[in-house]
Amino acid sequence: MEKAKIAIVGFGHVSREALAAVLESPDMEVAGVVLRNPVKVAEVQKEAGEIPVVTDVKELGEVDVAILGIASRAVPEVAKKYLEQGINTVDSFDIHGEAIMKMRRDLDREAKAHNAVAVISAGWDPGTDSIIRTVMEAIAPKGLTYTNFGPGMSMGHTVAVKAVEGVEDAVSMTIPEGTGLHKRLVYVKLKDGYEFEKVAEAIKQDPYFVHDETHVYCVEDVESLIDVGHGVHMERKGVSGITHNQRMEFIMSVTNPAATAQVMVSAARASLRQKPGCYTLPEIPPIDYIYGEREALLRRLV
Amino acid sequence: MEKAKIAIVGFGHVSREALAAVLESPDMEVAGVVLRNPVKVAEVQKEAGEIPVVTDVKELGEVDVAILGIASRAVPEVAKKYLEQGINTVDSFDIHGEAIMKMRRDLDREAKAHNAVAVISAGWDPGTDSIIRTVMEAIAPKGLTYTNFGPGMSMGHTVAVKAVEGVEDAVSMTIPEGTGLHKRLVYVKLKDGYEFEKVAEAIKQDPYFVHDETHVYCVEDVESLIDVGHGVHMERKGVSGITHNQRMEFIMSVTNPAATAQVMVSAARASLRQKPGCYTLPEIPPIDYIYGEREALLRRLV
Repeated sequence: MEKAKIAIVGFGHVSREALAAVLESPDMEVAGVVLRNPVKVAEVQKEAGEIPVVTDVKELGEVDVAILGIASRAVPEVAKKYLEQGINTVDSFDIHGEAIMKMRRDLDREAKAHNAVAVISAGWDPGTDSIIRTVMEAIAPKGLTYTNFGPGMSMGHTVAVKAVEGVEDAVSMTIPEGTGLHKRLVYVKLKDGYEFEKVAEAIKQDPYFVHDETHVYCVEDVESLIDVGHGVHMERKGVSGITHNQRMEFIMSVTNPAATAQVMVSAARASLRQKPGCYTLPEIPPIDYIYGEREALLRRLV
Repeated sequence: MEKAKIAIVGFGHVSREALAAVLESPDMEVAGVVLRNPVKVAEVQKEAGEIPVVTDVKELGEVDVAILGIASRAVPEVAKKYLEQGINTVDSFDIHGEAIMKMRRDLDREAKAHNAVAVISAGWDPGTDSIIRTVMEAIAPKGLTYTNFGPGMSMGHTVAVKAVEGVEDAVSMTIPEGTGLHKRLVYVKLKDGYEFEKVAEAIKQDPYFVHDETHVYCVEDVESLIDVGHGVHMERKGVSGITHNQRMEFIMSVTNPAATAQVMVSAARASLRQKPGCYTLPEIPPIDYIYGEREALLRRLV
């Protein structure tokens, strides 16, 4: 069996976990790590050992899939560059709604033009949760699904808080209140000379927080609060045919970067089994994510 | 929009619910009901009102998909007859393991030969549970998944009990014990002249029961015990990359025939979106089960 050659782009939390997950995958090998910032190459090379760390994927020779462990807003441009070279891409772009749809259209064009596959928003939400929401509607087409996140750190909200003037360090926790509503608990360490009340008010007015009940706390040390555990509880109550009160739940409690990275690695495998184009996770046959011979897998999973 | 023309084969619990679910589907219309037993046509026609009830699908004109609400053991032969006429089939064949794989190979050949699609084992287990088990492994490839059924009536076990000598009527309940183990509680009404202890022993020795803790009770009336509610609780604890203790659960509590029938109707829709061949549910992109314009669905579900 020829192993798929995987490049890891970036070297943050998710990329490190993706590297580990690729090394655990019998059908994959790591081609190397690609950094966009040349200043960091030497430092990352020390940690990566024998795995090459480069600034241009071309230095890695043949690459089948690039796993983009980078910030969501950088994904559209970076993915395009890889697709242009005929390399499949996987990202965990997490800006819900129209932004995903626009990227799907753009990357679909790019992927088809260069005979490649882009799998987008391949984390757990958007991602595997999107598949679960879809399956729940296949069982009960009418009704309501509530997605309750947490308790856990929200990366997007944390980044938003850190951008507020006067904040030296911060973490934003998502606390589920049920029926898809959430509280935000924000812990901030202030820069010298800033007044807590004013910073707290600025955070509450930020678009990321303005629609949710938000509580801001002043702390001396943010690092000691960090736990990357996260979770979700999805609930649907709906109608199958004309029969009401059909109930379904999906509950998950995971170490967040490891779960995100593993879903990306599973999506990298699936990318090699799709026709050229751009796909969100519910558009891919679930069995394509799994390592193994098709019939043996189905005998076990169906 | 041209509506898909659906034939319902059989008129038991699941077929009746399938008929209701098709009538609720904006993209489908009922072509008619097909019975294999001509003796029942007049009786079913009364209940079906203006919907034609026939013994040969050819009498219904153009049909796109046949939903086979029939016993599992009849499925391989009946599905073949429809596929030969270029009609897609959907069944809820529920004999796990090698039997599904054999049918998949046989119907795949038949479907491809006649430019049709067979979606097999399209209930909730096997069926949507198979999708959930697959998604759980995409998130955490190593580890164990336990599928816990019930409490609820098991159709297969009930049929097995009714075939035991001396049983006039019976129902078999599946009681989950956790970690994939189940108790069987069997309620039987005896035929005149039979001894309860002997009948109970024969049930416990039946291949359907011999591996499980089975309790048999003698009752005067089985009908008054019937509740077609059922459920499942799937649990996985596994490893994402090199990170352990990743936990997932799926819980469902449903009226069983309605859920099975709705999944079959959703699978009928998906059958029209696949290339010729035979598919189990994890082999189909989940979004294909859902009614609606692709991009609008993804905007809501991803």
